[in-house]
Amino acid sequence: MLKEIGLEKVTVKSEFWNYYIRNIKEKSIPFQYKVLDNDASVKIENENKIGTFDDERSNALENLRIAAGISEGERYGTIFQDSDVYKWLEAVAYSLYTAPDKELQALAESLVDLIEKAQDEDGYIDTYFQVQEPKLRYRMIYYSHEMYCMGHLLEAAVAYHQVTGNQKILKVADKILDNLDQNFGYEDGKIKGADGHQEVEIGLLKYYELTGSKKALSLVEFLLDIRGQDPDFYKKELERNEREGLPIKYSKVPSDLYYMQAYAQPKNQRTAQGHAVRMLYMAAAMARLVVHNQDREIYEACKAIWRNIVDRKLYVTAGVGSTVHGEAFSGDYDLPNDTMYCETCASIALVYFAYEMYKFEPKVEYIDVIERALYNGILSGASIDGTHFFYVNPTEVHGAICDTNPGQGHVLYNRPQWYSCACCPPNFARTIGSVQRYFYTVDEAAQVVYGNLFAASEITCFDDQLSIVQQTSFPKQNEVSYEVKGNGKEYELRIRIPYWASNVKLELNQKVIHVPAEDGYVSFKREWQEDRLTLTFDTAVMSIRANARVIADANRLTVQKGPFVYCAEGVDNPYPLTAYRISAAAVKAAKTIGTTKDLSAVKELGIKALRIPAKVEEGGEGALYQFDTTVTFKEEELTLIPYYAWANRGTKDMMVWFHQYS
Amino acid sequence: MLKEIGLEKVTVKSEFWNYYIRNIKEKSIPFQYKVLDNDASVKIENENKIGTFDDERSNALENLRIAAGISEGERYGTIFQDSDVYKWLEAVAYSLYTAPDKELQALAESLVDLIEKAQDEDGYIDTYFQVQEPKLRYRMIYYSHEMYCMGHLLEAAVAYHQVTGNQKILKVADKILDNLDQNFGYEDGKIKGADGHQEVEIGLLKYYELTGSKKALSLVEFLLDIRGQDPDFYKKELERNEREGLPIKYSKVPSDLYYMQAYAQPKNQRTAQGHAVRMLYMAAAMARLVVHNQDREIYEACKAIWRNIVDRKLYVTAGVGSTVHGEAFSGDYDLPNDTMYCETCASIALVYFAYEMYKFEPKVEYIDVIERALYNGILSGASIDGTHFFYVNPTEVHGAICDTNPGQGHVLYNRPQWYSCACCPPNFARTIGSVQRYFYTVDEAAQVVYGNLFAASEITCFDDQLSIVQQTSFPKQNEVSYEVKGNGKEYELRIRIPYWASNVKLELNQKVIHVPAEDGYVSFKREWQEDRLTLTFDTAVMSIRANARVIADANRLTVQKGPFVYCAEGVDNPYPLTAYRISAAAVKAAKTIGTTKDLSAVKELGIKALRIPAKVEEGGEGALYQFDTTVTFKEEELTLIPYYAWANRGTKDMMVWFHQYS
Repeated sequence: MLKEIGLEKVTVKSEFWNYYIRNIKEKSIPFQYKVLDNDASVKIENENKIGTFDDERSNALENLRIAAGISEGERYGTIFQDSDVYKWLEAVAYSLYTAPDKELQALAESLVDLIEKAQDEDGYIDTYFQVQEPKLRYRMIYYSHEMYCMGHLLEAAVAYHQVTGNQKILKVADKILDNLDQNFGYEDGKIKGADGHQEVEIGLLKYYELTGSKKALSLVEFLLDIRGQDPDFYKKELERNEREGLPIKYSKVPSDLYYMQAYAQPKNQRTAQGHAVRMLYMAAAMARLVVHNQDREIYEACKAIWRNIVDRKLYVTAGVGSTVHGEAFSGDYDLPNDTMYCETCASIALVYFAYEMYKFEPKVEYIDVIERALYNGILSGASIDGTHFFYVNPTEVHGAICDTNPGQGHVLYNRPQWYSCACCPPNFARTIGSVQRYFYTVDEAAQVVYGNLFAASEITCFDDQLSIVQQTSFPKQNEVSYEVKGNGKEYELRIRIPYWASNVKLELNQKVIHVPAEDGYVSFKREWQEDRLTLTFDTAVMSIRANARVIADANRLTVQKGPFVYCAEGVDNPYPLTAYRISAAAVKAAKTIGTTKDLSAVKELGIKALRIPAKVEEGGEGALYQFDTTVTFKEEELTLIPYYAWANRGTKDMMVWFHQYS
Repeated sequence: MLKEIGLEKVTVKSEFWNYYIRNIKEKSIPFQYKVLDNDASVKIENENKIGTFDDERSNALENLRIAAGISEGERYGTIFQDSDVYKWLEAVAYSLYTAPDKELQALAESLVDLIEKAQDEDGYIDTYFQVQEPKLRYRMIYYSHEMYCMGHLLEAAVAYHQVTGNQKILKVADKILDNLDQNFGYEDGKIKGADGHQEVEIGLLKYYELTGSKKALSLVEFLLDIRGQDPDFYKKELERNEREGLPIKYSKVPSDLYYMQAYAQPKNQRTAQGHAVRMLYMAAAMARLVVHNQDREIYEACKAIWRNIVDRKLYVTAGVGSTVHGEAFSGDYDLPNDTMYCETCASIALVYFAYEMYKFEPKVEYIDVIERALYNGILSGASIDGTHFFYVNPTEVHGAICDTNPGQGHVLYNRPQWYSCACCPPNFARTIGSVQRYFYTVDEAAQVVYGNLFAASEITCFDDQLSIVQQTSFPKQNEVSYEVKGNGKEYELRIRIPYWASNVKLELNQKVIHVPAEDGYVSFKREWQEDRLTLTFDTAVMSIRANARVIADANRLTVQKGPFVYCAEGVDNPYPLTAYRISAAAVKAAKTIGTTKDLSAVKELGIKALRIPAKVEEGGEGALYQFDTTVTFKEEELTLIPYYAWANRGTKDMMVWFHQYS
């Protein structure tokens, strides 16, 4: 079993990632706090134009103050508004590893104080139910998000305690565990159901990993076992409320058990169904539980769900969730480019799932997906300036259609500053703000350290007996060196050779060596002293075809170089993006043609394309339909940029999958 | 100004159309009556899976019986359920022209009796408001469909009176007019608003054409003038009801004035907006009014709306309405093939609009669109067996996606027997059941008769002074002869030469003649005695490209032969339809390869295609994404059938626009 290396053991030196980490610290964290405190002049947008959430302000901090009895007034916002605060706190915790900051820490401490005050004596904390619907506490868990919010608080508590040693937040977590344990379980008098939105399972597992609390582990086992056992559980909840004359809220939700993965016990599920974030938070918790209890039944379910996603439901950007309806997975191979959801949180959750699977069995395909998500579908979730965020990450956008066709109304071409359902921005901050956790993984029993991502960094592992300084300007340049210092004891270092790297050359202490990659890794087992391992490689421009069953990508190609999927934006290309056609050969011959004016770090690729006439004077346009016309294609260069950097320069059109002529 | 030839003056001999006319008489009309009378064992489906209409039974006749005081019980069904009955009656009227039938007429007479009984003393008739919400009569016209239903009754009354001379139904119509006139108008005390769903304007104009009632004409002028004048009219209606403590029904609707084309006065509208059927019923009424009052302002609006549709919003099948959301038009050039609506009723309404435009100015482009709709987007609305109906007529269907992605849930690959919102089946029956009205048009002042469609038939015109027998087996064969008998007076015969006909050869009395087509017609002005005009032509297979601005059809081609657009169905082609790629040259070389087994009249086309490997053993499929693969295309024949005949053989997949390699 593998373990994360521990954030305290990693120093990030990567220029690429530090840009984001710095952005999160300097812009996102202060900005998000202001939003949560109703202190920012910010335009809050609805996340899919069909939602009906309140969108005047966040009010999340004020809600806690009201629950704490410090403020008076009306609680405001979504039922799960509290979670935004907790994700912010978690992001702050990770930021304190990379950049200690007393002022920020003081702000966080004051938040911890507030949370402690807001928590009830019995450990319960959820401002919606504390303030607005006290009678419905744990009585409508199909939609209450109570455990969802407490799960995020548990995650924040563990992270914040780990970096600061703060005891107060740990006590808050202890009390939450007690409260949950008193209320949920197979024992008589306890509720035999699980939250409609999975999340607490992850929080409890992190708490277990920190404290060793068996109670926490058992609770996760219970929650993942009870789910789906009684298909009528949520209906009965409602009926009981009705019978007892309690208010009925959000009553439509429990009708779709697939939406919340309650159609079967998790261990008996085999495909990715329903709401993508719920599905993947659950899968991440299942896999994380397996890391601790080696439950084979749950592991089989995890493997099947993983295969279903990776073989049939994964966008090339590592987006997931093909439909806005229920923010959900749809059928196999249904990967529409323009009506999809691909919520930032869903790709984040996919990374969590993949990483737990990797810890249990270190197969490189998990890292491949993590890398694909980090460099593409997650990174696209935030603007280069760090203050604007996507909820939906499409692979094709035609602004004129998004503006007029409600079926694509949820697809935006500008990142809003904030959302009424604001899960994504703080989720981005906590995930990319701790991206270094994916650089290395260790197997302490086998004394192996896995180098997964190329990213300049310094780590120590095996009780600081081994240190690795990774020097590289990747992704700018394709040379990576590892300075490994050891105590002469034997350790194995496994370096992942990505599938996109070609002409890989290795030198150990300046001598060329030939080590074949096995299962995606080159392995060096030696008694390290002061050694230097150097890798050079090429990142050729690759064309990608989708499986013939993917209707949306038929007769299309996309482009990848290194870990980056590329896209074309209207702002760089003068004709409608659909007018360009490319070939696999043209992709192979693509050239780096410069760096984008307004995005200094972003390299442009140029591909020779055949362009269909698109203007009347070129023999195109005019009538809506043309009969028996002969078209003379024009040679034209199609300019591409990495997908993650799209929508930073006011474009309205973007494509990832290009039409193909050969 | 042109006029319809009058259904009593046309005898249909066309094998192609008589198949449908007979089907309507022998199957649709009896079947639909049974459904309306809750007497058919029928599966009623919701028209778009997001609707919430009742779908247990139609109850439409029972509703009238309840209103008439003959039955007791609960009225059931949509607010506009009555209209299904009236459209049925109108279809029966047309059927009696082509096939007199005493039994059917007796059934219709009994329905007329029932309608008369259901009508209130003051002329009002609408079972929803008579039975369920009497206090809301004419008090929520933003959604009431009261005038919509009465409009359909007016149309039925005119048609049924014309064919049978029935006076009772005419009196019902007289009383409706009185009622509407007493309630709506600029005069003090009358309601200054128009129905949320346009339709009554058409009914009133037909009534005016029959009776010459100036009151009816003025009412249409009022309704088309008052619409959109006060943007708050519908809101005020609601507010008044609220103030007076009346029940509030369907209150969300008036928020979108574009949905119901009430954002501006019709004369000031320039584009097709909102609900497609409402838009086009209104446009048809506007153009029909112009035929009578030559209102230039309204005509300018009609022309602009026509251009907006034909140049930017028309599917190649003559479908309209690009989105299920509001069953509506979307933006310019937004013509998605798989998420569109293209309701059968919308194409029908487009034909109505086109025909009125044509009457005012006989430009061939109007007939081109009528023909495109009749042979494609309307005909596809019914099954070959005449008892199953589409509401949505897509141009691309992948069954596996429709089954799992709610964004395409409204797109079906099997025609249901009936709908909870059942507008389309009887609309199909009344429209195709009187298709002969489009064969010829006359200009009595100029003594010109226009032959618009190739269809075996016999007509007389100019007070029976001229008769034309058109002999042809078209579309089976491409020879058409006109036997024209006259009284020696000079008349002009203009025969439309369709844009899709090539190598046109003309003979007059067995002598080859050369008459160039002008503006789409060849003209013969002569003192007809007993003359025979013969046309032969070819129907080459044509490739069609869409304007480069049509995102959905980029890098695609479709195929037309004669008036028929072609499609490919999964049932005829063994590989995923998206795996085939064609070229314009291959389309040109396409061959008729036989007639479809289960659809004896339907010709198949074969096109040489290059097929992308779609199975693992061919080098396709396997992984979801393939990097830098070289693909060897296979030569393969793609089998096509006319679009209208799709979904009759259990297919789940269909495409109109094919991927293109050149």
